[in-house]
Amino acid sequence: MSPRRDVAVPDLVERARAGEARAVARLISLVEDESPLLREVMAALAPYAGRAQVIGITGSPGVGKSTSTSALVTELRRQDKRVGVLAVDPSSPFSGGALLGDRVRMQDHATDAGVYIRSMASRGHLGGLSWSTPQALRVLDAAGCDVILIETVGVGQSEVEIAGLADTTLVLLAPGMGDGIQAAKAGILEIGDLYVVNKADRDGADQVRRDLRSMLALAQAPEGAWKPPIVKTVAQKGEGLDEVVAEIEKHRVWLESSGELARRRTRRARDEIEAIAVTALRKRWGDVHGRSELDDLAAAVVAGTADPYAAADELLEGL
Amino acid sequence: MSPRRDVAVPDLVERARAGEARAVARLISLVEDESPLLREVMAALAPYAGRAQVIGITGSPGVGKSTSTSALVTELRRQDKRVGVLAVDPSSPFSGGALLGDRVRMQDHATDAGVYIRSMASRGHLGGLSWSTPQALRVLDAAGCDVILIETVGVGQSEVEIAGLADTTLVLLAPGMGDGIQAAKAGILEIGDLYVVNKADRDGADQVRRDLRSMLALAQAPEGAWKPPIVKTVAQKGEGLDEVVAEIEKHRVWLESSGELARRRTRRARDEIEAIAVTALRKRWGDVHGRSELDDLAAAVVAGTADPYAAADELLEGL
Repeated sequence: MSPRRDVAVPDLVERARAGEARAVARLISLVEDESPLLREVMAALAPYAGRAQVIGITGSPGVGKSTSTSALVTELRRQDKRVGVLAVDPSSPFSGGALLGDRVRMQDHATDAGVYIRSMASRGHLGGLSWSTPQALRVLDAAGCDVILIETVGVGQSEVEIAGLADTTLVLLAPGMGDGIQAAKAGILEIGDLYVVNKADRDGADQVRRDLRSMLALAQAPEGAWKPPIVKTVAQKGEGLDEVVAEIEKHRVWLESSGELARRRTRRARDEIEAIAVTALRKRWGDVHGRSELDDLAAAVVAGTADPYAAADELLEGL
Repeated sequence: MSPRRDVAVPDLVERARAGEARAVARLISLVEDESPLLREVMAALAPYAGRAQVIGITGSPGVGKSTSTSALVTELRRQDKRVGVLAVDPSSPFSGGALLGDRVRMQDHATDAGVYIRSMASRGHLGGLSWSTPQALRVLDAAGCDVILIETVGVGQSEVEIAGLADTTLVLLAPGMGDGIQAAKAGILEIGDLYVVNKADRDGADQVRRDLRSMLALAQAPEGAWKPPIVKTVAQKGEGLDEVVAEIEKHRVWLESSGELARRRTRRARDEIEAIAVTALRKRWGDVHGRSELDDLAAAVVAGTADPYAAADELLEGL
């Protein structure tokens, strides 16, 4: 794992900033592989990050996330924006084949120099975002993307994490995927900055919109708060995406004028710093390497000879 | 927040162990409220924990989780087991009223002295399990429950976390909730020890079972591994629950004989200790109290004058 001689980080960063797709890809790989150069990469990118608008795209399976992401890329390109896409796949034994079929339509954009598309593995088998997702965002951001879309396949932890990473969270729904109450149960009413009712040419789309509107009305927003709009689309035909892009732009303007952008980004930076610090501590405590102090403490808790608080105290004393 | 004079922890624990429901409820409240007595409670419970089988119940909204949980309680009571139920609600602005309607049917068990039912708030607005869930489990366990069911409302982070807490994870599906591919996308094929196709009197139940079976067959299990069974139920009529209980019991026997129970519980204890330690550190870093070192570091990262790794290093140096 010694640094490869042929990688000069400042040169890579410069080429990435000049729009060279291979340099962007290489930087993301260095990040994903936890290269020994990771810290140098992050330090080199720091001055250039913070310009892109990060859009999280989430929603239950079957609502048409991949199609919508692709249609959104098309619309953003029409407006001459540079676009990055991070598609997070569950690294499941099932994700090798059929499940990636959705991705095929992303290949429409594969030859467009104004679009970077990157699939990233998710953390473990459980669908959380990889710890390196924020770092990959930084690479795309520093490389000059105006907009970065993060899309997850599937539900679970990633939805929540995406809302934490994004400036603007776009929640997709579709008719026939369960009624409004189900949406509320799924917790998505708290995370959306913009709701998209996709497959709006199907029966029930207006009902979904009405349900959603009345549920959103129940959430008492403080004055000056953003009121999440609801947009209808037929992503497969590219319909309604211009309106989605317009609402995304309105949200960006609101984020900046309200001070919310600074708040979200500071919170994101805090989370990121904390996550890196906690990961380092976990390694120290033996999360990665064989038997450790933590293992001994856990065995005592299982045996009933210690309680978890006493065990945690002991762990912290060792710092 | 000084300890109340009238709470004697050893007395409470003794009464809880003797089956007094009010003492169990009081102990869980002490845990949930982060009482100053929390550590004393945990220390007093430690010798008595580890006897209950913890069953996580998960599945997409609409598959009939609450009905199934209730029917499972009925069946377990028929077999004279003492049962605890932890129902985790998203603490959402929407969860006050209608969403709790499902819970009404749990009241069938409200007068049964062999059943403890407890609703717990979830963490924040995003549906994760409360940090106090493992501690509440410990209370029910020490109080002599043979089986503890943890049920979540909704999808999201909680599904994943439930699998981490449970000895046995039960995944519910139902016809008409999306096909097998969707199930795979949702990541549930990795977490189930037992699959239940509920609403099996509806069209499509056999198809769900077939899809599931072929997808599970794709996961190459090592020799001696547990092969998750698939059971069909009609929870509303109490049909098939005897088979579910029988499979839960088979899984318990396998967990013990294979050594997997010890492995899962050690892992769970590690996670619990780590979570407590990390929470303590976060408090120290200023997650809770106003402006702090972490805020300053986050501001530097947002401004581009520091990268998150350098910031994390600084944070850790402060320990």
